[in-house]
Amino acid sequence: MNKISRRKMLLIMGGSLAGTTLAMAGSGISFAEDTPPPGPFKLAQKPFSWTPKTLDPKEIASVAYQGYAYKGYGCAFGTFYSIIGLMGEKYGKPYSEFPFTMMEVGKSGISDWGTICGALLGSVSALSLFWGRKERDPLVDQLFRWYETTAFPIYKPMGKAVKFEGNLPTSQSDSVLCHVSVSKWAYSSGFSAASDQRKERCARLTSDVASKTWEIIEAKMQGKTIAGFGKSDARKTCGACHDKDKESPILKGKMDCTPCHSGDKNSQNKFNDHPLTK
Amino acid sequence: MNKISRRKMLLIMGGSLAGTTLAMAGSGISFAEDTPPPGPFKLAQKPFSWTPKTLDPKEIASVAYQGYAYKGYGCAFGTFYSIIGLMGEKYGKPYSEFPFTMMEVGKSGISDWGTICGALLGSVSALSLFWGRKERDPLVDQLFRWYETTAFPIYKPMGKAVKFEGNLPTSQSDSVLCHVSVSKWAYSSGFSAASDQRKERCARLTSDVASKTWEIIEAKMQGKTIAGFGKSDARKTCGACHDKDKESPILKGKMDCTPCHSGDKNSQNKFNDHPLTK
Repeated sequence: MNKISRRKMLLIMGGSLAGTTLAMAGSGISFAEDTPPPGPFKLAQKPFSWTPKTLDPKEIASVAYQGYAYKGYGCAFGTFYSIIGLMGEKYGKPYSEFPFTMMEVGKSGISDWGTICGALLGSVSALSLFWGRKERDPLVDQLFRWYETTAFPIYKPMGKAVKFEGNLPTSQSDSVLCHVSVSKWAYSSGFSAASDQRKERCARLTSDVASKTWEIIEAKMQGKTIAGFGKSDARKTCGACHDKDKESPILKGKMDCTPCHSGDKNSQNKFNDHPLTK
Repeated sequence: MNKISRRKMLLIMGGSLAGTTLAMAGSGISFAEDTPPPGPFKLAQKPFSWTPKTLDPKEIASVAYQGYAYKGYGCAFGTFYSIIGLMGEKYGKPYSEFPFTMMEVGKSGISDWGTICGALLGSVSALSLFWGRKERDPLVDQLFRWYETTAFPIYKPMGKAVKFEGNLPTSQSDSVLCHVSVSKWAYSSGFSAASDQRKERCARLTSDVASKTWEIIEAKMQGKTIAGFGKSDARKTCGACHDKDKESPILKGKMDCTPCHSGDKNSQNKFNDHPLTK
């Protein structure tokens, strides 16, 4: 006890880290002088305290689509604003005070890196304002698995298109990653990943993801049972040996394994004899 | 003009979509009755208007590490709170009013899906409160490429560890994805992806990513030139044919291509003759 001051001890006991830090005190461990104690996280607000409010699904679909193009803020801004922004416009605080342009970060899979699809990032960020992980994870599972298995785009713009008029080819990505989703669509459609057709595809997909997210939120608000998350067959197969407590428990994540581990021609050695010289 | 009411027209002309929507008016396109006009995005605040404030790097490193374990909020909460939360504790609004638990969404690569490393998601979310894409993208490039090429973890906890005491093996992931980063570490270290050792590795990595992010923010605040982003060799090679305006412009993203496209044994056909029966 003598290495932690009484004041620090009171602070610690009043905080949420009491269990951990009492154990520390018990073991006689103290902090170096230049290291602050474990953060009391003074700003910790009431967690996940925002409440979802009723919105019009048609307006969500339209605003998400327009939001993709609005000042170039992109897909994550589109889905997020179509839910939290519209709540802010209709119901005021706290929704209206979120710093919305933060969500631009999700554009092109986070600053053009092609990681998580930004439309999904905007949607799950909205979900996490309302629900902590125990309630949220099944909703995310449903949204992500639907995304992996759906051919995009679906949405048909009313009025003028934001990037390209007319019908577009569709493709299923088997992946929640922007890189896989966009590159597969570009390959199968024949349009450049930098084309207006691809941007239009992503604007419409932004609307599709926002609509599905709202369907999931609305079901949750109404206390309806969320349909079970069916893991992909590949994820089940790999998990049989690589999940927790199995013989080789190295697997992290729930993504479908096929795009990268199936021996598909896209994941063969592309640095040797490519394109095929035959 | 006669299909858009004068009131709507005034609203449109006052908004930021004036160029687009005037073109629509010129082409005589109107909206279906049940579809709202392109959102004026009434809540659009001054974009990217937050200003970074001085913090203590040692405190950032410690709070990010502790934040990983704090109430189980995880890696994205850890990095984000260590920057924006500490600014809130020291400087008040607007930092203090961010709904911090939203960032829990990044835990385990977004609700356990293993997509983007959550520590990176928390960091880039902080960056995007300060800077729009033109200024932010080079910072993200620097952070992400550093992450791909660094062996984690580096941080040595002062005082009691949050999950596991002692030294840990390190590994380089070549990827910004949680799945690849964690699973490679688990494979090479021999520890389960669900072990306390792996959780400790991720807590320390959370501190590492927060420290690097702060180094990048501080350099930017001081007007220092950010070192150029060196694309990975594989990304350069693939881009020579698959980038914009090349012969097969299907490539989206900046991730290193090797983990999934190099013919590495991990991306061979794992559903056939695996484990090898020899």
